[in-house]
Amino acid sequence: MRTVEWDNGAVKMIDQRALPWKLEFATLKTVEEVAESITNMTVRGAPAIGASAGFGMALASYQSNADNINDLLNDLRAHGELLKKARPTAVNLAWAVDKLMAIAESGEFNSPDDLRDVLLQEAQKIADDDVDINSTMGANGATLVKDGATILHHCNTGALATVDYGTALGVVRAAFEQGKNIHVLLDETRPRLQGSRLSAWEMEQLGVSYDIIPDTAAGYYMQKGEVDIILVGADRVAANGDFANKIGTYQLAIMAKEHGIPFYTVAPTSTIDLALKSGDEIPIEQRDPSEVTTPYGNPIVPENFNARNPAFDVTPHKYLSGIVTENGIVRPPFIETLAKAVAGEQV
Amino acid sequence: MRTVEWDNGAVKMIDQRALPWKLEFATLKTVEEVAESITNMTVRGAPAIGASAGFGMALASYQSNADNINDLLNDLRAHGELLKKARPTAVNLAWAVDKLMAIAESGEFNSPDDLRDVLLQEAQKIADDDVDINSTMGANGATLVKDGATILHHCNTGALATVDYGTALGVVRAAFEQGKNIHVLLDETRPRLQGSRLSAWEMEQLGVSYDIIPDTAAGYYMQKGEVDIILVGADRVAANGDFANKIGTYQLAIMAKEHGIPFYTVAPTSTIDLALKSGDEIPIEQRDPSEVTTPYGNPIVPENFNARNPAFDVTPHKYLSGIVTENGIVRPPFIETLAKAVAGEQV
Repeated sequence: MRTVEWDNGAVKMIDQRALPWKLEFATLKTVEEVAESITNMTVRGAPAIGASAGFGMALASYQSNADNINDLLNDLRAHGELLKKARPTAVNLAWAVDKLMAIAESGEFNSPDDLRDVLLQEAQKIADDDVDINSTMGANGATLVKDGATILHHCNTGALATVDYGTALGVVRAAFEQGKNIHVLLDETRPRLQGSRLSAWEMEQLGVSYDIIPDTAAGYYMQKGEVDIILVGADRVAANGDFANKIGTYQLAIMAKEHGIPFYTVAPTSTIDLALKSGDEIPIEQRDPSEVTTPYGNPIVPENFNARNPAFDVTPHKYLSGIVTENGIVRPPFIETLAKAVAGEQV
Repeated sequence: MRTVEWDNGAVKMIDQRALPWKLEFATLKTVEEVAESITNMTVRGAPAIGASAGFGMALASYQSNADNINDLLNDLRAHGELLKKARPTAVNLAWAVDKLMAIAESGEFNSPDDLRDVLLQEAQKIADDDVDINSTMGANGATLVKDGATILHHCNTGALATVDYGTALGVVRAAFEQGKNIHVLLDETRPRLQGSRLSAWEMEQLGVSYDIIPDTAAGYYMQKGEVDIILVGADRVAANGDFANKIGTYQLAIMAKEHGIPFYTVAPTSTIDLALKSGDEIPIEQRDPSEVTTPYGNPIVPENFNARNPAFDVTPHKYLSGIVTENGIVRPPFIETLAKAVAGEQV
């Protein structure tokens, strides 16, 4: 099944906290539950969060008792804000909410039920489009992956981070499906271990050759000449190409530069936020330190030990070789090329 | 008590695998047990390993039934090799074994019992010297730490990594004891978490302000300008200043360079191996992947998932601001200055 989908009046999603041990599903019957599932990382990954928010808005419309369009719009606005606050860094969340709100507020709907049905159709389209876009990005990005290549990857950007197929791991999958002989080094990605728990599980499912490595070993393998290309995802890309991604991405970018290794982010244009001039404006979520001290309920250290837990960092565009989008591989100067890609031009 | 000491015919050490939960001690009655305690990391940290090996050689001499000096020497040679094989990267282990073997083979001893007593005295001296040396290094290094500084630190280099006081964390301790207002960011140091388990425990004992951070967040805090100096230990320093240290050190060095942050290793001259021209010659221990997938018996992922676990990396000397030793702070060109420090000159 897909990571997130509409299921008979509810939002059904893979509970990613239970992987790799169990493939469990959560069925969410209210928009409040959808918001909480985003905050507590039942679902995570910028595109998957975006699709979840889309379905969350559809759910909010059916959940509303409004019998006139204005009351329904008021309910949708409040629930849109609730969803947007669920996590601050990834822009796909706000992008999906705003996209559906723009339709709702278009003035074209007089019947609440008509609007409800259209919102569900549009949410479904966001999800369907995500799969198509990822497939296209995979094909675009696979041109960068040579036969015999070892790819270093951070966090999880596979089917689980999206509706299906994946962004950076979608490129890996495309290269693999083209018959290329590839190997993936998966940063385990502390504190939440998306690399070892989710990406490794996906590589096992696909049959792609991989090794989990501690985040501390990335530089070691680059120094040994074992890394041919680094592929990561993105949670938000600013107009100048600076981008936020999972904590640890920035230091990989520095190491890539030091070793002369190509460094790409793979992101749909829905992740690009042209309203932000640079990465300085991207809000960075600070999560509970207990994710560091007690990952998944297993205490590493006593709970009174001090820890800090920034969830994302910002990589300045100067470190980026390019941005793989569904409209082609965007190259510097990003300030020009990103706007074209967002406008739908092939770059 | 000290991390390792002689206790009534046995070697007694803190079992570092039980920290931070319990302060437990292991009492080792054979040299084979000492070797195993080094391999399984009951004791770890280059200077602590060196002291343990010294006591291990003393233990080997008492354990031997030899009634003549030649038989005793043969037993010592065999057990010295056993100890040296316990872990390959840190040179302090071989340094201590070789130091005691040189005394044993000096030709000055005709009575096995005389030799046994001298070996114990010399092992005790190695341990006592380590404490004195660390105290001196602490004072030397504290001149680098400004009042108000935030220090980034990797792995554990405190009292637990030595006989007492510590190397890089000994510098932190000295600055703290001088009344400087300091804060320490402790890399948790996957896979074995020496930062969050051991260094945080030591900071709690001393009352030094600290935060554990995931290894992925080191670059983030450097980018934010929160890191004033980076202090790490060393397991072996080559003649040109290249040095091996816990996996993840190399990438910190690259980040330090990118941000213009001073980057020092703190190491006694017993860690300097002038026989090696460069870091390329330092053997890197590859440990069991289960340390990555199942840290301390807590499975993160299924045991059939693939992982790699290099225990150390080598940082080229070009990244080093200096090496803090008991004979002063060694500066480039290391090829000249290190030899002087090893010869006992103040640098």
